[in-house]
Amino acid sequence: MANIRDIAKMAGVSVTTVSRVLNGHKYVRKEKKEAVLRAMRDSNYHRNINAVHLSRGKTSLVGVVVPFANHPYFGLLIEGITKAAVQYGYHLVLVQTNYNESRELEALKMLENRQIDALIICSRQSTWGTIEAYMNEGSIVLCEDTRGKGVSSTFVDHYQAFMMALDYLYDNGHRNIGYCVGRQNGTNSLQRAVAYKDFHYKHSLSLNEANIFHGCYHLEDGQRVAKKLSTMKARPSALLITSDQVAAGVMTCCLEKGIEVPKDLALIGFDNQPISKLMHLTTIEIPLVDLGEKLFGQAIQNNKEPTYEEVIVKLIERETV
Amino acid sequence: MANIRDIAKMAGVSVTTVSRVLNGHKYVRKEKKEAVLRAMRDSNYHRNINAVHLSRGKTSLVGVVVPFANHPYFGLLIEGITKAAVQYGYHLVLVQTNYNESRELEALKMLENRQIDALIICSRQSTWGTIEAYMNEGSIVLCEDTRGKGVSSTFVDHYQAFMMALDYLYDNGHRNIGYCVGRQNGTNSLQRAVAYKDFHYKHSLSLNEANIFHGCYHLEDGQRVAKKLSTMKARPSALLITSDQVAAGVMTCCLEKGIEVPKDLALIGFDNQPISKLMHLTTIEIPLVDLGEKLFGQAIQNNKEPTYEEVIVKLIERETV
Repeated sequence: MANIRDIAKMAGVSVTTVSRVLNGHKYVRKEKKEAVLRAMRDSNYHRNINAVHLSRGKTSLVGVVVPFANHPYFGLLIEGITKAAVQYGYHLVLVQTNYNESRELEALKMLENRQIDALIICSRQSTWGTIEAYMNEGSIVLCEDTRGKGVSSTFVDHYQAFMMALDYLYDNGHRNIGYCVGRQNGTNSLQRAVAYKDFHYKHSLSLNEANIFHGCYHLEDGQRVAKKLSTMKARPSALLITSDQVAAGVMTCCLEKGIEVPKDLALIGFDNQPISKLMHLTTIEIPLVDLGEKLFGQAIQNNKEPTYEEVIVKLIERETV
Repeated sequence: MANIRDIAKMAGVSVTTVSRVLNGHKYVRKEKKEAVLRAMRDSNYHRNINAVHLSRGKTSLVGVVVPFANHPYFGLLIEGITKAAVQYGYHLVLVQTNYNESRELEALKMLENRQIDALIICSRQSTWGTIEAYMNEGSIVLCEDTRGKGVSSTFVDHYQAFMMALDYLYDNGHRNIGYCVGRQNGTNSLQRAVAYKDFHYKHSLSLNEANIFHGCYHLEDGQRVAKKLSTMKARPSALLITSDQVAAGVMTCCLEKGIEVPKDLALIGFDNQPISKLMHLTTIEIPLVDLGEKLFGQAIQNNKEPTYEEVIVKLIERETV
């Protein structure tokens, strides 16, 4: 593909002259201008939009960091972000990290290098220090509670959401409650762990670490948990599962193993994904599409001051408690 | 954020001089060079990577057109594409179209404007003529059989795949077979419709249009189909469903309506998604991650000649036929 240098060569003029023609500069000799235009026609030259970006300092691209694009939770977030991006005439650069810090750093570097106008981090592995180091490089928005930290966010209060679900199970008579979660050390996971401890303390219940299942992201992880449950002597009577997808896996596999839901095991999922409706799963609804739209809005707003938006979750009572 | 013009102003030199300093040009007076470097330090200037792209004619961005990012089929394709992109040091610009032609056109324009180095179209609404008009603007790769059309592709022979599934049902005694599909007029859907007709002709069976269900993409669509089936007088004894997700919806809802699988209704899904394994669903495996990786490889290769790669599908026998 011809670039500005090829055009200059073909037209027998300098690169500066080509640039002047492209930018409609007044003082270009007629013969030179015609030679440039002829070379552009002959080589089927198209102006590189990056030149326009360079001049405007804007790319109309927003970066989106997700650990996995192929997961219903992040799928719905991306749907919301896309919805808003289309509305405002932006495109998204998808950075799938598999929770690999170096991939997150690549995304931050893209912001620093002005390849994207803003960066939305849906979930991160990097420390807060890494994020902080880039906060003056451009607009960064997070999907976790960043109040007081100087970076905008839209977030769910996972402590409150977890406590609400635990209290609901308690009110339904459960005293031996376990939970399934993704990463052990993610910001949201830590909030949940604290809620879980506080819940046990509040009700003077003893906490059993064997009731906590980590690394639960997909349907198959639910199967693994159900298999484990079927071998436990003092099995929990209820499980809180931070993904409907995983909950559906637990439920399906429990039925096969003769563990009756909710009689033998009560289940509460998270998100209110379509699969939870289909399986009549009680769940905590997180308005993920709405959340994605809000994240995008914050990413492209030109406020100097960070903004913090909390989205409200609610319990959807179905048939698994 | 300081740009090249701000730097020039701060240093009291011309934009051309700043550009020369940035590009390591030999003939810049020492005082001017120092003034520029000082201004860059003072303003915390970072070189805009778009300038580098402009000069190199390469963005390291590849566009990916999908109708919905939040769908397990496209999720796995994106996973494969991402896998290869990471390996080759590229990032993806995600263009979610909801099968809106103008969104597809935006993606093609990005290619024309050199905002992306290549474009992968996973599924399209645009006519072939539209694609053809942009085929000289850069690397375009499609996920459908384009043999003889001059544009590279990795594809599944959906005619053969559909025929294989239909023959398998026939061999299992089924004579009244229906199917569920997404769009009525997509390239792949048309191939399937032809296979369906040919199958009926081959076995001298009469074809009943009421056994064909369109608009089936999600779990909920499966529910809708199951509800419809429960009211049909001459219900098909088997269904071929072009998405495991939809098949899972049909299956779950059938059980509730007292339609036994496979006794009352045999089911074959497509893709071999995790949910099909969980539900013991017989399915046609499409190696989507592998397909995505291949699409990416074709997108960034510099062959002048188009390449065509067919991926092979296989029947996974489980418990729903």
